Amino acid sequence: MPTIPPRNDDRPKVRLYVEQALAQGQHVAVTQDQSHYLGNVLRLAAGADVALFNGKDGEWRARIGHLAKRGGALTCEEQTAPQTNPPDLWLLFAPIKKARTDFIVEKAVEMGAARILPVQTEFTNSERIRRDRLQAHAVEAAEQSAGTFVPEVADLTRLDRLLADWPTDRVLWWADESLKGCDIADPAPAPAAILIGPEGGFSPAERLRLRALPFIRRLSLGPRILRADTAAVAALTLWQVRHGDWTGPR
Amino acid sequence: MPTIPPRNDDRPKVRLYVEQALAQGQHVAVTQDQSHYLGNVLRLAAGADVALFNGKDGEWRARIGHLAKRGGALTCEEQTAPQTNPPDLWLLFAPIKKARTDFIVEKAVEMGAARILPVQTEFTNSERIRRDRLQAHAVEAAEQSAGTFVPEVADLTRLDRLLADWPTDRVLWWADESLKGCDIADPAPAPAAILIGPEGGFSPAERLRLRALPFIRRLSLGPRILRADTAAVAALTLWQVRHGDWTGPR
Repeated sequence: MPTIPPRNDDRPKVRLYVEQALAQGQHVAVTQDQSHYLGNVLRLAAGADVALFNGKDGEWRARIGHLAKRGGALTCEEQTAPQTNPPDLWLLFAPIKKARTDFIVEKAVEMGAARILPVQTEFTNSERIRRDRLQAHAVEAAEQSAGTFVPEVADLTRLDRLLADWPTDRVLWWADESLKGCDIADPAPAPAAILIGPEGGFSPAERLRLRALPFIRRLSLGPRILRADTAAVAALTLWQVRHGDWTGPR
Repeated sequence: MPTIPPRNDDRPKVRLYVEQALAQGQHVAVTQDQSHYLGNVLRLAAGADVALFNGKDGEWRARIGHLAKRGGALTCEEQTAPQTNPPDLWLLFAPIKKARTDFIVEKAVEMGAARILPVQTEFTNSERIRRDRLQAHAVEAAEQSAGTFVPEVADLTRLDRLLADWPTDRVLWWADESLKGCDIADPAPAPAAILIGPEGGFSPAERLRLRALPFIRRLSLGPRILRADTAAVAALTLWQVRHGDWTGPR
C-alpha cells in the first residue's frame, strides 16, 4: 500500500485497491491492514482523501469516514481517473528464485501486462508458487504505478499443457536466446502473449515444439544474455511501443 | 562469479573477470575468492577449463594450473570470443534503496550501457554510494551475461554539476514522466545517455533546467508510472533497438 510519486494533478497520492464496487456516494469498507496503514502508518484521520480503485470502475477520490482496529469506512466522492485496461497481452514466465519471481510480477504490472501466467518448463526449478502472494504483489504494483487495472496471476501450469490448449488467434512471442537479427516489428497486435524462458533456457524438445507451433513468433533481445526479469521488461517494452498502449511512432 | 546458462557453443560455462592482460599462453593469477569459488564451490581441479575476460582482450579459454587457499593460476589457451564493446551509451540514475540500486547496475550491464553514472538530484535520498560495491555488481553482471565488457560505475555526482560539464555532442534522453506521445524514434545515435529520475521525479527547478538544455531529448515510457529500475530497462531497450547493438529493423 505505497504512496505514489508527486504528480502534476490533484489526484490523492495514497492509493488503495479494494474489491467493492465504486460509484458516487458509495460506502466502501477497507480491511484491517488497510485501516492500520491509513491511520497508524500514514496518520490519516476522518476527513482525509485517498484514491480507491478496484480494477473495474476507474479511480475514485474517497473520504475517510472512520478508521478502527477492525477496519475502516470511506465514501466515494468523485471519479478521478477513468478505468483504463492494458492491451490484451499476456506474460508467460518460468518462476525462478522467489525475489526474482516477485520482481517479474511487479514489472509485468508496471509494463501493462493484462494477465500473468507462471509456467513450468523442463528446466524450471520450482514446482509450485504462492499464487495468493504473487497476486498481492500485483495489487501493490498497481497501487504504486497509478494504474486502475490489476492483472490476474494464474496458477502455475505446465508449458506443454498451456501450448496444447492455446487460443490460436493469440500470437505468442518467444524470447529466443539463440535468435539474432529479428525483432518484434512484424505486425502482430493484441491478442498476444510473451514467453520468457527460465535460467538455462528451454530444453531441446521444448525448442523443437515451440518452433513448430503456428502461433509462435520469435523475438530477439539483443546480443547479451539477459536474466528473466530483465528479459520480461525488455520484451514488454518492445511490444508496448510497437503494438500496445505506449504512444509514439512505430 | 556465477555460471552462465547452457549455450549452443563450446565456450566454458564458468566465466571469471580478471584484471590481467589475456593472450595466448599468458599465465593468469586469480584471487583468493576466485580460487575458493573454482575449487571449493564448483569443485574444479587442475586441468579444467574456465572462461576469462578482462574487459579489453575478449574471452579466453583458460586451463586451471593450480588452485590454492591464497589464489590460483591459469593459462590462456585460445580466444573464445572477440572483445565486444557496447555502443557509447551512458546511464544516469538517481540512487534509491540499496537493493534497487544494485538492480539498476545489474540491468544496465545486461542491457549494454557503456558507463553508469549515479547522480544526486534534489529528490535523491542517498548522499553517498558504495562505488566499489556497485562496481563489483557490474563485474558479476558481466560474468553472468556472457559479455566481455564491464562498464565503469562513476562516483556519485550532483546532477547540476554533471549538466554544467556535459559534452554537448552527447544527446541526453530524459525519461520524463509528464510526457505523452513522443518516443525515441528521433535519430540520435551514439554518443548518447539516458537519464532516469528518482522516485518522486525531478524538482520543478530541475525540470525547467532540463527542458532548456540543447542536448536534451525527452522520452516517454508509456502511460503507467514505472519504478526507476523498470524505467532504466525500458529506456535502454528503446535506445538499443533503435540506435544500439540490438539487431533488427528500426
